Amino acid sequence: MKTDTLIGQEISEKINNKTKPLGALGMLEKLAFQIASVQNTLFPKLVSPHIIVFAGSHGIAAKGVSAYPSEVTPQMVLNFMNGGAAINVFTRQHDIQLLLVDAGVDYDFEKSEKLIDAKINHGTSNFLEQPAMTSEECSQCFERGAELVRQVKATGCNVIGFGEMGIGNTSSAALIMSKLLALPIEDCVGRGTGLDDQQLLQKIAILSEALKIHQNVSSDPVTVMQTFGGFEIAMMCGAMMEAARQNMLILVDGFIASASYLCAFQMFPSIKSNAIFCHQSDEKGHRLLLNALEVEPVLKLDLRLGEGTGCALAYPILTSAVAFFNEMASFESAGVSNKSS
Amino acid sequence: MKTDTLIGQEISEKINNKTKPLGALGMLEKLAFQIASVQNTLFPKLVSPHIIVFAGSHGIAAKGVSAYPSEVTPQMVLNFMNGGAAINVFTRQHDIQLLLVDAGVDYDFEKSEKLIDAKINHGTSNFLEQPAMTSEECSQCFERGAELVRQVKATGCNVIGFGEMGIGNTSSAALIMSKLLALPIEDCVGRGTGLDDQQLLQKIAILSEALKIHQNVSSDPVTVMQTFGGFEIAMMCGAMMEAARQNMLILVDGFIASASYLCAFQMFPSIKSNAIFCHQSDEKGHRLLLNALEVEPVLKLDLRLGEGTGCALAYPILTSAVAFFNEMASFESAGVSNKSS
Repeated sequence: MKTDTLIGQEISEKINNKTKPLGALGMLEKLAFQIASVQNTLFPKLVSPHIIVFAGSHGIAAKGVSAYPSEVTPQMVLNFMNGGAAINVFTRQHDIQLLLVDAGVDYDFEKSEKLIDAKINHGTSNFLEQPAMTSEECSQCFERGAELVRQVKATGCNVIGFGEMGIGNTSSAALIMSKLLALPIEDCVGRGTGLDDQQLLQKIAILSEALKIHQNVSSDPVTVMQTFGGFEIAMMCGAMMEAARQNMLILVDGFIASASYLCAFQMFPSIKSNAIFCHQSDEKGHRLLLNALEVEPVLKLDLRLGEGTGCALAYPILTSAVAFFNEMASFESAGVSNKSS
Repeated sequence: MKTDTLIGQEISEKINNKTKPLGALGMLEKLAFQIASVQNTLFPKLVSPHIIVFAGSHGIAAKGVSAYPSEVTPQMVLNFMNGGAAINVFTRQHDIQLLLVDAGVDYDFEKSEKLIDAKINHGTSNFLEQPAMTSEECSQCFERGAELVRQVKATGCNVIGFGEMGIGNTSSAALIMSKLLALPIEDCVGRGTGLDDQQLLQKIAILSEALKIHQNVSSDPVTVMQTFGGFEIAMMCGAMMEAARQNMLILVDGFIASASYLCAFQMFPSIKSNAIFCHQSDEKGHRLLLNALEVEPVLKLDLRLGEGTGCALAYPILTSAVAFFNEMASFESAGVSNKSS
């Protein structure tokens, strides 16, 4: 492993002296190096892992960009609250604390300890008619996301993942990606929750139209977020930036979360040291987006669910990375002969 | 998910009715389907997971096919016994029972509860001079491997992984693969524990010579195993076949384990229903071998360590597959609207 700091050299030496061929733990060695570097220690720990799931409704969702109706967003929030969704199962499995946030769902939930009310509005506006949110709404998203992370940090947590729920939000993510990376929208659009060929063409046509309508807006990440984003995407973006400021490890989930990260990265490039890309999704644009970000995903399981499920599924691999780094014997301590050359 | 049995249809329906888009859990859905099908139930369980690591010394190891000296094989066995190797760390992490087996290491270990003595001989013969083992030795390997699995099965275990340790054993695996699949040896040979370009050419030259010497032996899997195998590879092969007979789930690790599986598969093709390919290794021949077997690995982490580490690292993904299948809500139970089309 290469490095340019003193602690970096010590971390590399510790990895290389473990009883295994040089580099033989592949991705786990990269993760161990990154985690130890972020924590600036030879004895890293993952403490009180959390996943925050942000939910939001989308003005565009009624326009035929998704295979599912818009009311699935609040229905799934209730499912999260009742513990029945995939992210509930996987966070229970790995003892990860799950927080649910209403970032802007078009539904009035009853007050509950299980749902954090950070509602900005009852869904975004339809970006075929106007920007998805006002400038104030976008700022509020960033602020509330950051505040939530500060609260989580205060519990001692040093590793945090982010998930989302929002029917229509692959459309927002594709537009953000297209605009910020100056890529053709066709390359950024996928089938989302399961469009057929005809519906996919319609989605591309709608998103092309949206880009055209807003062709004169600037390509700075805040404006792009305001124009095309979802409340859950913007709040996640604010949360990610705060997690980087707090020097936490950031678990990035799939396509939507990566679009959120892209905005955060353009505003705050040093976030990259803290970010772990948990998986490469089956959604078409995601591989291209990860390539553009020059990052390597931990898992490739053809997931396309969101909710932070990729973060939860990758978490035991991170735990393994920390465990081998802390617990494996060295060649010397085990009395094993090292490579002769 | 497609299926041709009644229970298969019920399993697919159960997966498809979970609150997620159709197919959105990708590889996890395939695993859930396979595990439930093997166990023939809508309520699968992973019980008392075990990993058996077989160790053996290789006559060829002194001839310059490995980056590490042959004495590393017994040294690593002692490291396993002391709990300091990667496989110790990962099995502890996931509460997997680890069994260590001396299949034929060229070293006399003191008697210990931590090591199962199944020693066939003090290392194989050098296959540049004669077959690696006698026909009796090869049969003994199959029998002892099978007997060990029967003992493990008796504890209630229904999921078993296999690892290996044996300096020189990527050479055996490459020869087995080349001979059984009629592929050029160059395509099957990789850098093992870390050969440089020059050493890799030398390894290819040595293995080409070995193939030439034994060009007239038959290509049946038993003969190929006897000619080129290691005791640990043959014992693993016997163990895998018995695990299939006992209808256990079989976790296949990396390149060596896949070569072992290849022999087992050619003798006992129905083993395929029970086998889960835990990862695709960084060793060159492995991707080609997995392609030839028409199977899809769970993880791609660029591991090249062996020891069963890929099995242990993939295990939580299997647990997740079983957990979502058993615990997630259905569209009906959660009151979530399904896809409109």
